[in-house]
Amino acid sequence: EVVEVAEDWGTHVPNARLLGALDEHRDATLLAVVHGETSTGSLHPLAELGGALTERPGTLLMADCVTTLGGTELDVHGWGVDYAYSCTQKCVGSPPGMSPISVSAAAIERFEARSTPVGFSFDFELLRKYWVERPATYHHTAPVLHIYALYEVLRETLAEGVAERCARHVAAGTHLQERLRDAGLRLIAEPEHQLPQLSAVAVPDGVDGNEVQDELLLEHGIEVGGGLPGAPEMWRIGLMGPNASIETADRVFDALMSVLETTDAAISA
Amino acid sequence: EVVEVAEDWGTHVPNARLLGALDEHRDATLLAVVHGETSTGSLHPLAELGGALTERPGTLLMADCVTTLGGTELDVHGWGVDYAYSCTQKCVGSPPGMSPISVSAAAIERFEARSTPVGFSFDFELLRKYWVERPATYHHTAPVLHIYALYEVLRETLAEGVAERCARHVAAGTHLQERLRDAGLRLIAEPEHQLPQLSAVAVPDGVDGNEVQDELLLEHGIEVGGGLPGAPEMWRIGLMGPNASIETADRVFDALMSVLETTDAAISA
Repeated sequence: EVVEVAEDWGTHVPNARLLGALDEHRDATLLAVVHGETSTGSLHPLAELGGALTERPGTLLMADCVTTLGGTELDVHGWGVDYAYSCTQKCVGSPPGMSPISVSAAAIERFEARSTPVGFSFDFELLRKYWVERPATYHHTAPVLHIYALYEVLRETLAEGVAERCARHVAAGTHLQERLRDAGLRLIAEPEHQLPQLSAVAVPDGVDGNEVQDELLLEHGIEVGGGLPGAPEMWRIGLMGPNASIETADRVFDALMSVLETTDAAISA
Repeated sequence: EVVEVAEDWGTHVPNARLLGALDEHRDATLLAVVHGETSTGSLHPLAELGGALTERPGTLLMADCVTTLGGTELDVHGWGVDYAYSCTQKCVGSPPGMSPISVSAAAIERFEARSTPVGFSFDFELLRKYWVERPATYHHTAPVLHIYALYEVLRETLAEGVAERCARHVAAGTHLQERLRDAGLRLIAEPEHQLPQLSAVAVPDGVDGNEVQDELLLEHGIEVGGGLPGAPEMWRIGLMGPNASIETADRVFDALMSVLETTDAAISA
């Protein structure tokens, strides 16, 4: 049974609501949240949530860190995140194709005690035998090019410094977001929970959002996402990995303004 | 329920035995075979099996084509293979990380009628919406580097000719296998079902197979596989993709002979 605790698009789900839901479902075995919500650019207060869950050892914490790893502070051990998963192609800045995961001691204990079968791809016991234990037990042929690429970006990240890399994402993202707000555009996420590396911009009334996306891609070589099905009309601008720079932020902003000037829409500044 | 029809290591399972097992299990929904058995170098007569199954439309045919695609004739449509899956890094000659699959109209009908849930990664309906239908429905972020690499090897394959590419694998493999037999070594697979691109060589009595593998790797830069757990002691030599050449076959053979000469073992020629 899954109990969903939802808020409107762009509004983070307050931890108090999540803890309240756990009070109503004391046998909940897992609480799953998204650290950085790619669909709206909302950042969840994950450290605070992890701290509050230490008193509830029966409920493990899972966090989707797809958009945060490599760009936002993330301390899975210190915060008590039992399952964390991410990707390589966003703030980590490596090619797409792998999913770095982190599993806590409590999570290992949990799946070691499992009696129901689990799919081969997500069988953490088999994956551990392949990736961690030595001698290794074969699970799959490793995507060697991706591993070399990941090794290289991790080397670069250590050379830059993890904190410095996160600060670079914050600087680039907040710079873009300030310019967007100054131009009269509205961001979908709550300002106090705005994820720096993903800016979800509400498409102004009277503007064809898809047309702007096409123009940005065809005329400026810049790919900007649209809203997910069911979401309000928006553009989603990612400044991640090597693109997390003031220079790229300015380039994207200038291109967006240039495209908007050619439309009939007026933006109230 | 899975009914296993097995033979000894290196012996292919005759189609007559498979069809006999189907006679005993007339409600079998799927027959699964390995086209090219990587663990022994045995090639299954898949075309013949597909032909025999046309009279049993209720039993779909699944073939593991991991080691054959790109190196051995494979006509999934003509032979009536309903599910075929392979890899990119063997005879196709691209980096590891993707699994090309083929699904027949009957298989699509089968999974469209499915009422039990299936894992996200193997949900062919979702995969079809992402890879085939347009506009696409998001399923996963595509491993773009692998797709570029696959595109390039497919372009090279068409330039070489599919039949010519298979003939090259046959020429290189049979050349190596003749030299191995001439040197008094025994191949694990039945000669009339020998897969060209994978030569499984029985380790002669008194020879330390692992030591030979280590020497080949460290002294000659050649990686040769060992036997799978439970299999007889063997070396598995793959000549696949760009390595399917007489030159590579000779290089591997000469290196193996050179390593064997330094051991105490005598090979009866």
